[in-house]
Amino acid sequence: MAAVRIAALREVSEIERRVAIVPEVAARLVKGGYEVLVEKGAGSRAFFPDQSYTDVGAKVVARAEAISGSDILAVVDTPDATLLGATHQGQVIVGLLGARSDPAVAQALADAGVTGIDLAFMPRTLSRTQTMDALSSQSSVAGYRSVLVAAEKFSRYMAMMVTAAGTAKPARVIVLGTGVAGLQAIGTAKRLGAMVQGYDVRPASRGEVESLGATFIELQSVKDAAGEGGYARALTPEEQAAQQAELEGYVTANDIVITTAQVPGRKPPVMVTAKAVAEMKAGSVIVDLGCSALGGNVEGSQPGQTVITDHGVTIIDGSNLAAEMPGSASSFYSRNIMALLGILVVDGAINVNLEDEVLTAVVVSHDGQNRKAN
Amino acid sequence: MAAVRIAALREVSEIERRVAIVPEVAARLVKGGYEVLVEKGAGSRAFFPDQSYTDVGAKVVARAEAISGSDILAVVDTPDATLLGATHQGQVIVGLLGARSDPAVAQALADAGVTGIDLAFMPRTLSRTQTMDALSSQSSVAGYRSVLVAAEKFSRYMAMMVTAAGTAKPARVIVLGTGVAGLQAIGTAKRLGAMVQGYDVRPASRGEVESLGATFIELQSVKDAAGEGGYARALTPEEQAAQQAELEGYVTANDIVITTAQVPGRKPPVMVTAKAVAEMKAGSVIVDLGCSALGGNVEGSQPGQTVITDHGVTIIDGSNLAAEMPGSASSFYSRNIMALLGILVVDGAINVNLEDEVLTAVVVSHDGQNRKAN
Repeated sequence: MAAVRIAALREVSEIERRVAIVPEVAARLVKGGYEVLVEKGAGSRAFFPDQSYTDVGAKVVARAEAISGSDILAVVDTPDATLLGATHQGQVIVGLLGARSDPAVAQALADAGVTGIDLAFMPRTLSRTQTMDALSSQSSVAGYRSVLVAAEKFSRYMAMMVTAAGTAKPARVIVLGTGVAGLQAIGTAKRLGAMVQGYDVRPASRGEVESLGATFIELQSVKDAAGEGGYARALTPEEQAAQQAELEGYVTANDIVITTAQVPGRKPPVMVTAKAVAEMKAGSVIVDLGCSALGGNVEGSQPGQTVITDHGVTIIDGSNLAAEMPGSASSFYSRNIMALLGILVVDGAINVNLEDEVLTAVVVSHDGQNRKAN
Repeated sequence: MAAVRIAALREVSEIERRVAIVPEVAARLVKGGYEVLVEKGAGSRAFFPDQSYTDVGAKVVARAEAISGSDILAVVDTPDATLLGATHQGQVIVGLLGARSDPAVAQALADAGVTGIDLAFMPRTLSRTQTMDALSSQSSVAGYRSVLVAAEKFSRYMAMMVTAAGTAKPARVIVLGTGVAGLQAIGTAKRLGAMVQGYDVRPASRGEVESLGATFIELQSVKDAAGEGGYARALTPEEQAAQQAELEGYVTANDIVITTAQVPGRKPPVMVTAKAVAEMKAGSVIVDLGCSALGGNVEGSQPGQTVITDHGVTIIDGSNLAAEMPGSASSFYSRNIMALLGILVVDGAINVNLEDEVLTAVVVSHDGQNRKAN
């Protein structure tokens, strides 16, 4: 039986530094009987040179050959039309394909005749999917990095400093949204010695926040907005306005604000209003992980930019943080993909078993069908 | 008796974001009977708006008025010829004036007829000078920040991560030169969860390095190079070559290298050769605190630049790190200046008492005399 052939491509976007298969995982796939193709330069932006792939038995090839010569394409971001045009019937594309926020993606994949597997649809509450949960692994990187970039822009020490020339107070950090990214941000800010508060609309977060040594903020206006699949539900407009108003006092009392609130498939909720930003102290820093072209968690955040307001508040676009730490992000991402292959490839052959509760959730297109149409 | 008038100027260099007097210290000086003048915009790059000075009783004025209307000018960096030309006979200028590395500075100050007080000449071994030691306070900021900028460029987590999708090894960090900056770098890297090694030519450093939880590196080639005043002495060319060769193995085994070796008034010693850089792994990061126009501790570091080698090693100029974290740096710096005023101003009047062991060390020009000529 011929080996299943899997290829990792070089991502098209210049700011996407991740690669879907790292050399360590390539080595394990080769040992597991796969033929592994890697587009020339696919890992270079993550500091994985071509040589590191050939060293472990993968083949470094031109893009066209990686696409035409593989059964499975492993990617990070949404495939563009050029890539889809080069695929062949029945080919599998696996990645964070973007079908969750843009319904047109699943249709395009279906039209191209490929089997699209979008890891963003991974059911997060099953124990066997923990190893495949790319949103979690990438959010963890983003949360960690959000604190690093905030600390780097902040003009003071994060920790309390006691020196011969006097004492400095620790930085005050508030994290809004304490899912995977938020908890990792809290942990990192605590490591650096900051005083940290965490807020989430899901009351169950309290224990996780407190176990990291941070203070959990409870609002009077929004008591419980836990939703399905471990996410928060979308707030009503009235709840959102009340939340914004009540958060303002917490936001302006802190030096660093990190917002991580996203509701899948929707415009991110505004948690920090322009009024709150205007009342923050000069030198404060905000990182908006929800920043997008549609708006973010922070009024005034701009995709691709770091904004400094007239009164000295720095607002950082935190939407691309995982891609900016491509070594760890790619390592965990490619382990997620390898774990998924464990259910997709059975006895050395691809088997898109839509009876499987995981595959039925993540397969967005198959046999020409858009499985997310509704 | 008229109040002593002290002025803080806006630094001329665009990359110098520090200010010599912060609002907190201005408040204390005003309470102590000083008249405090602040040049318009002096604190803005450190996020201290003009209003924060006027709020505490300082006067915000134009540059010319700050210079002509003060008895003492507090500055951060070397005063340029334009500033010296605007001073008046007998005026005091206090700051990190640069006379230690450039003998022409003291002469220029003497020619201008000002009393120059260069904090870089502060005797570091007296207990009463601990509060005035600006080199220490600024090195501490630089050491802390060196780790932040390294972590920000590094493509992986600093700490060991244990997740559902597998484990990541901690980053390996080596700090070369474990004075104030080096120890602060070690402490910060440990906070972030890295595995840390420290190296210094002064064997007495071992205890300090180990007390921070790092491993102390002892070389066979250089056993003891402790010098005067708490600094290391300059190595002979033979010692330096042997040190470079022996350090190479340690450098290439680490992911992040931070070099802090400076010998006052001399070209910084090369500790990381081009050969060592070439043998480091792709994705490694080096921060060279000794980086200067004359060369630095790392071959290939460039003032004002972040260099990425062809094989993916990032080399960061670390010479301006204190100025890049201007809030804390300025706060501690201005406390250092306030402490110095405690011996310079006696009973409400300036008294340049050259019998005092501190003043005789730091006063580089007085009454038209260059006190560092030899």
